[in-house]
Amino acid sequence: MENQNNSINVNEVESSLSGLSSNEMFNLFKSVRRQTIELCEPLAIEDYVVQTDTFMSPPRWHLGHVSWFYEQLLKKYYKDFKPHKSDFSFYLNSYYQSFGTPFNKAKRGTISRPTVNETIDYWRWINMQVSAFFKDNKLDDEVYKMFLLAYNHEWQHQELLVYDIQHLLQDKYDPKVIKYPPKHVGTPHKKEMIKIKGGIFELGFNPEKWNDYFAYDIEMPMHKVYLNDYEIDNAPVTNEDFLQFINDGGYKNFKYWLSDGWETVNKNRWEAPLYWEKDENGKWFKSDFKGKRFIEDFPDEPVINISYYEADAYARWAGKRLPTEAEWEKAASWDEDKNAKRLYPWGDDNPNDVNSNLLESKVWAPTNVFAYEKGKSYFGCHAMVGDCWEWTQSEYMAYPGFKSGFAEYNDKWFGNQKVLRGGSFGTPRLSTRNTYRNFFRPEERWLINGFRCAK
Amino acid sequence: MENQNNSINVNEVESSLSGLSSNEMFNLFKSVRRQTIELCEPLAIEDYVVQTDTFMSPPRWHLGHVSWFYEQLLKKYYKDFKPHKSDFSFYLNSYYQSFGTPFNKAKRGTISRPTVNETIDYWRWINMQVSAFFKDNKLDDEVYKMFLLAYNHEWQHQELLVYDIQHLLQDKYDPKVIKYPPKHVGTPHKKEMIKIKGGIFELGFNPEKWNDYFAYDIEMPMHKVYLNDYEIDNAPVTNEDFLQFINDGGYKNFKYWLSDGWETVNKNRWEAPLYWEKDENGKWFKSDFKGKRFIEDFPDEPVINISYYEADAYARWAGKRLPTEAEWEKAASWDEDKNAKRLYPWGDDNPNDVNSNLLESKVWAPTNVFAYEKGKSYFGCHAMVGDCWEWTQSEYMAYPGFKSGFAEYNDKWFGNQKVLRGGSFGTPRLSTRNTYRNFFRPEERWLINGFRCAK
Amino acid sequence: MENQNNSINVNEVESSLSGLSSNEMFNLFKSVRRQTIELCEPLAIEDYVVQTDTFMSPPRWHLGHVSWFYEQLLKKYYKDFKPHKSDFSFYLNSYYQSFGTPFNKAKRGTISRPTVNETIDYWRWINMQVSAFFKDNKLDDEVYKMFLLAYNHEWQHQELLVYDIQHLLQDKYDPKVIKYPPKHVGTPHKKEMIKIKGGIFELGFNPEKWNDYFAYDIEMPMHKVYLNDYEIDNAPVTNEDFLQFINDGGYKNFKYWLSDGWETVNKNRWEAPLYWEKDENGKWFKSDFKGKRFIEDFPDEPVINISYYEADAYARWAGKRLPTEAEWEKAASWDEDKNAKRLYPWGDDNPNDVNSNLLESKVWAPTNVFAYEKGKSYFGCHAMVGDCWEWTQSEYMAYPGFKSGFAEYNDKWFGNQKVLRGGSFGTPRLSTRNTYRNFFRPEERWLINGFRCAK
Amino acid sequence: MENQNNSINVNEVESSLSGLSSNEMFNLFKSVRRQTIELCEPLAIEDYVVQTDTFMSPPRWHLGHVSWFYEQLLKKYYKDFKPHKSDFSFYLNSYYQSFGTPFNKAKRGTISRPTVNETIDYWRWINMQVSAFFKDNKLDDEVYKMFLLAYNHEWQHQELLVYDIQHLLQDKYDPKVIKYPPKHVGTPHKKEMIKIKGGIFELGFNPEKWNDYFAYDIEMPMHKVYLNDYEIDNAPVTNEDFLQFINDGGYKNFKYWLSDGWETVNKNRWEAPLYWEKDENGKWFKSDFKGKRFIEDFPDEPVINISYYEADAYARWAGKRLPTEAEWEKAASWDEDKNAKRLYPWGDDNPNDVNSNLLESKVWAPTNVFAYEKGKSYFGCHAMVGDCWEWTQSEYMAYPGFKSGFAEYNDKWFGNQKVLRGGSFGTPRLSTRNTYRNFFRPEERWLINGFRCAK
Repeated sequence: MENQNNSINVNEVESSLSGLSSNEMFNLFKSVRRQTIELCEPLAIEDYVVQTDTFMSPPRWHLGHVSWFYEQLLKKYYKDFKPHKSDFSFYLNSYYQSFGTPFNKAKRGTISRPTVNETIDYWRWINMQVSAFFKDNKLDDEVYKMFLLAYNHEWQHQELLVYDIQHLLQDKYDPKVIKYPPKHVGTPHKKEMIKIKGGIFELGFNPEKWNDYFAYDIEMPMHKVYLNDYEIDNAPVTNEDFLQFINDGGYKNFKYWLSDGWETVNKNRWEAPLYWEKDENGKWFKSDFKGKRFIEDFPDEPVINISYYEADAYARWAGKRLPTEAEWEKAASWDEDKNAKRLYPWGDDNPNDVNSNLLESKVWAPTNVFAYEKGKSYFGCHAMVGDCWEWTQSEYMAYPGFKSGFAEYNDKWFGNQKVLRGGSFGTPRLSTRNTYRNFFRPEERWLINGFRCAK
Repeated sequence: MENQNNSINVNEVESSLSGLSSNEMFNLFKSVRRQTIELCEPLAIEDYVVQTDTFMSPPRWHLGHVSWFYEQLLKKYYKDFKPHKSDFSFYLNSYYQSFGTPFNKAKRGTISRPTVNETIDYWRWINMQVSAFFKDNKLDDEVYKMFLLAYNHEWQHQELLVYDIQHLLQDKYDPKVIKYPPKHVGTPHKKEMIKIKGGIFELGFNPEKWNDYFAYDIEMPMHKVYLNDYEIDNAPVTNEDFLQFINDGGYKNFKYWLSDGWETVNKNRWEAPLYWEKDENGKWFKSDFKGKRFIEDFPDEPVINISYYEADAYARWAGKRLPTEAEWEKAASWDEDKNAKRLYPWGDDNPNDVNSNLLESKVWAPTNVFAYEKGKSYFGCHAMVGDCWEWTQSEYMAYPGFKSGFAEYNDKWFGNQKVLRGGSFGTPRLSTRNTYRNFFRPEERWLINGFRCAK
Repeated sequence: MENQNNSINVNEVESSLSGLSSNEMFNLFKSVRRQTIELCEPLAIEDYVVQTDTFMSPPRWHLGHVSWFYEQLLKKYYKDFKPHKSDFSFYLNSYYQSFGTPFNKAKRGTISRPTVNETIDYWRWINMQVSAFFKDNKLDDEVYKMFLLAYNHEWQHQELLVYDIQHLLQDKYDPKVIKYPPKHVGTPHKKEMIKIKGGIFELGFNPEKWNDYFAYDIEMPMHKVYLNDYEIDNAPVTNEDFLQFINDGGYKNFKYWLSDGWETVNKNRWEAPLYWEKDENGKWFKSDFKGKRFIEDFPDEPVINISYYEADAYARWAGKRLPTEAEWEKAASWDEDKNAKRLYPWGDDNPNDVNSNLLESKVWAPTNVFAYEKGKSYFGCHAMVGDCWEWTQSEYMAYPGFKSGFAEYNDKWFGNQKVLRGGSFGTPRLSTRNTYRNFFRPEERWLINGFRCAK
Repeated sequence: MENQNNSINVNEVESSLSGLSSNEMFNLFKSVRRQTIELCEPLAIEDYVVQTDTFMSPPRWHLGHVSWFYEQLLKKYYKDFKPHKSDFSFYLNSYYQSFGTPFNKAKRGTISRPTVNETIDYWRWINMQVSAFFKDNKLDDEVYKMFLLAYNHEWQHQELLVYDIQHLLQDKYDPKVIKYPPKHVGTPHKKEMIKIKGGIFELGFNPEKWNDYFAYDIEMPMHKVYLNDYEIDNAPVTNEDFLQFINDGGYKNFKYWLSDGWETVNKNRWEAPLYWEKDENGKWFKSDFKGKRFIEDFPDEPVINISYYEADAYARWAGKRLPTEAEWEKAASWDEDKNAKRLYPWGDDNPNDVNSNLLESKVWAPTNVFAYEKGKSYFGCHAMVGDCWEWTQSEYMAYPGFKSGFAEYNDKWFGNQKVLRGGSFGTPRLSTRNTYRNFFRPEERWLINGFRCAK
């Protein structure tokens, strides 16, 4: 890839932020924006334009869309605000009916304008507007909350960028800001299932306890659920484990599969996770951020890029099942000694605290994308957060007592999707926590999704 | 419709059962079989052949398939058994991979053979085989259970027959064995929401308590769930209620809809429930078992033939939500005075007991299809069972501790469907109970499905 | 199949025609109608209802549609005429925009009404109306022409019935009124190519010369075309010939195929003509009117049920090409000695003349469907008419000077189709002639279509 | 559009040709290559990547593909030749089965590599290889012919580039090398139909007469056809003419349309030619190379961007028809006085002769793209060549006696397409001539296609 093809230089782009105040919100804004650009640095301009499939978006679209999201806030709260360009708004609206009929998602790759440079101009212009807004306006609670939402929104798109760029470039994308593969510290754990007592558990985020932290409306309210006694794997299912399922004919035997899953496997002729291929000798290799590698060379990594259906079939093959999200959350968060729930497997210490010694590396910026490889849970579960998203069997639905916090943000997607928990090595650190509920269709595989089993 | 087109006479067909012993199982078998034929009596031969859409099956296929199901049992338990014809088996297998690749469901209407007469010959032949089997064999527990399953299987197909024939013939199908519309006894209830206290509730069927009754594996085990306090409508949402939603622009405003629902509404251009049309004066009428009637002429009937998406949108418009299946089951079954759960809203009395005075009519046979119009629940909820299936917000998934009782019967359909509860006036009486879990895709409307709201 | 399933008895139906006058037009009407019914006699009622694919129509629809066609004439010419039923008209209109938006062709198999009996009632009612019309009205030239068109229209549907019923029932359909396979009289011919001199040839039907005969507008005007010298096969390509192409890998080698043909072959995974299958020993057999037969047992029959693409690929493989329709017509019709064109390969003698000795059997009624197996052309070409339709390379387009004779009948189909010539053993005798232009899409195979090559 | 986004500078790219000899073939090669680059100069890198629809290709793909075509020649004739990169070959093969299964055409826009820079590197590398080849090798007749084919191939892709880029950028693409709109010299002609006598006409290219010129195999052999007397418009149908058809309800009345056309119009909701839109006042405007202009401001330009179906419907509305390709060619080429056929409407003078005064501008390079606006034909037909491609009613099929000159080049596309004649203002001058046969599917509208009528 030649240098002159790279359209964006992170330092040059960030300079447009120099007018922002030193206020923490401004600093956070700057770091969020920087981090998005960092993910794109390896790209050639051509790479920003392509849509490989309907579920994916061109990277340039992501860049424009996250800027557009701030524009909607500015329109709402900034009385002198004039939007940039109307045709940008049409293209860059993802799915918000309240801002007019959105551009057909499946066609995002059929137009070449705005160009990358125009998108970056827009990016800088938004940065200047936000900077001016922060200088001019007192951030009342509602505005503060909406800007926090916007940062979290951008973190979500950062992770989608990782998935989408990988789908486009496969082994040609090596985002240096992502630490992959995650390096596990200390001696390897022994695979076992952890026994956990049932009873009432309080599921979800408690804003009174963790009032310094952001959480989405869908993580609330914290509410009681009853759990039976259960067992849960102390670590995600690995490549080595999953190869046994494949080698035992797992993809060929209907009896392990849900009916919809069996249909999906056959229609798509799946024989292994996404990005796995066989070489001429029948040996499986994978194309990912580290290039092409034989599966047998990284047996202990969690198996990822698998659908809910494959996770479910594996579990049935293994005589187990997938956990519910309540089971997952209790295993990750409950501290029996303190009779309390923790926001992270290791406690409530903010992983973004630069003085924290929870994490492998101390030299990180809050804007980095990274993996939480340390910090097992009270019950002894490893890698709950930061290795891979983990499928649960729970449908993504409102918690009892749910109140919508953001119109058309999360709640219009209830139903037809499964909850994933934990966060992956592609998830921005600031957006991980035990209560986070991610959700995807059961057939989706282009994310960093794995699983652990329960019984 | 001319007489000579009718292929089946119920008395003539039943005569083939005359060789059966007087054993109760035999009698039940006879009544199940008779009831299936009764539903088809109004049909012309042509009606048996057509498949109107991929979700529907030709009535002739249903007739053949339920016979085929007994054939599989006979093959398994009857050592001298020789199947009827191999090409029948291929066409009549619905989805059981264990009996070979099934015939493409979407193509069931593209072949004309076996003819109706051949299907009826097969029907009689199966009856004779079952009769012989019952004479020759001692029914051990496993066989007994499998035959009970086969009866319940046939009851399910009876209800599908009602739906499918209505989809084909619309207002031209008047199955006299179905009492429609259900006649409600006594003074009309006042619409209100019932307040129910939360806490631990035990969801599901308890085989120890009700050991005389059949239930599917997916209704078990009975298990604890925690419920918050909630309110639930004392009756299903009616045509009158739903018309208000329509007249208020409910189908035109995205904000009431889930994203998938909004897409479904627009793709299909839905403006009202299935079978509703506007006359030239803009007045809504419906084509159903009673012909074409104006909606305003039956405002108090439950609105039916609506998708989950429409039920959910109505609930949001009304400031409510759909109940979970646990909320529904508690409202229908719990008796606070006795601190016990009942199998039917009115108690545990078997509605099939001919001496029961719970039901409107005393002259019924256990094989009739009918509606439970009486018997409100302890909490005062009307029409929980027997008016219409009611959408719940719960995804159809295994209960904790689920053990599969029948391979490929219910459990391969977990996920991607919503649970409906209660049973409709098209549901055979013997297969209704408070714990019954029906399940359909959220966009399906050709069944007798309505809903009530919760808060 | 039981007798009571057969809905139509030819004698019973025809009796409704007894009121018609003895006028020749009436007799012809009667014979046309009888012949349609004869083709359907082997059917069970179920067979009338099914649509196997979008190109096919349910037999019951054909019966209704040809009656509907007369209804349109009666509406136009008969002042006291009241149509039968409006919902029939909607269903039975094939594609005539001038009579309102037609019923979706692909959905003809999704409704079961009108029933077969109702359709036959309609059939008889139409017969009575036509009878009354013929009694009451003087047939002026225009009306006479339109009724002749209606008969020819019905003959076309008779042939479509043969194709459609075969597609439904395959080897279970044995229409006794069709003489199949055609019996060739005399010693077998030697396969060779006939050399024919070029120059000006007058293509098409000349109404002045053959003013007693019906021809479609699209066969006119007769007009000059210039032909180079050419050679043409003296007989259609046979099963034996075509097997050599298959065995030589013809279906596997792109170089014989047009691009569209290669795409079609691969998309549909064609490996042989329609209705050909391999048995477990790899021997090809065919399912047709005579049951299942091995191809090697009838090597001399023309290969049929092949698309234009397959005919074209065979020709390229053989170092030949397909003839144009002018080349075909000259080879079939030109008499060098008389310097004149003949309407039939053997001359202008009407094959419907019962005294003709041109035909194998003398005991035939004008309403029979049969094959012209005798009567080679002046140039020595065999089986030009009556064995199988023969693909030509000519696109179906208007002849120079074309005047539309019937709105929306033939001329709206110009383009995107190829002309076939000659008529098959399923073509009603009265509608065959050298100038007849049949037309189908190049991928269609469910008709009785073969070919001969040219150079 | 910012400068740094432009990936290609024409002078820089051409410098790679400097090593070529001064031989005319080399010069021609250089000019062909330069002209392709000139068409792309206005593009930003993003524009090279997008595929707007399945019929269109990303501009970068065209650049790579024309280079790839030379690579195939070099592989065949140059013994020391080593191809560039194997993954390029897979992506850049358009449809040649003989070079392996081609990349799925509909997916050309789903990959971003090779990048534009990599494609330009490949372009230069090919230029160097060709240069070396021309130095090292004596061009025997076959090689000479194949290179001429390669130049003509590239000219075809130049025109496709014009169409494809317009489809992507609409009014944002202004290729300065295309003279648009064509300026007509002299006083406007009066619209009339020209009467032309029929008889034998010799259709096609005669290599003996024009042995200095290139023609495709499908233009040969010249052969006799018989024409009736006919009339033909002296100029293409104009915007003003076509507006009358629209305003008369032409798009709303089935009776003007072929059945396939009517289906196409309704499926696509066509109401006017491609690129036409109505402003808020109901006035038609068009987006093209000159920006957005009201149709009434250029009434005399030929109507373009219309399908065969629309041309055919207009002709029927006007009481006319489309000409055959023979009628078109005679009107354009025949000189009654000399009893001879001309290669261009104005005679046989090569439009590429720099001393020619046939053309408006003398300052042109042989590599320009331009329009032949002068030079009416002997019969008085204007603008036969160089304004727009004109639909004829003739199917694209082999001429009698056709011999394939280039495997898989033209002849595998016979059938299912209509011949267009004349060349547009987007057609490279060197590839226009009276005998040129262009061909497209009847529904295609993204080319510069118009028509004139005949009678």
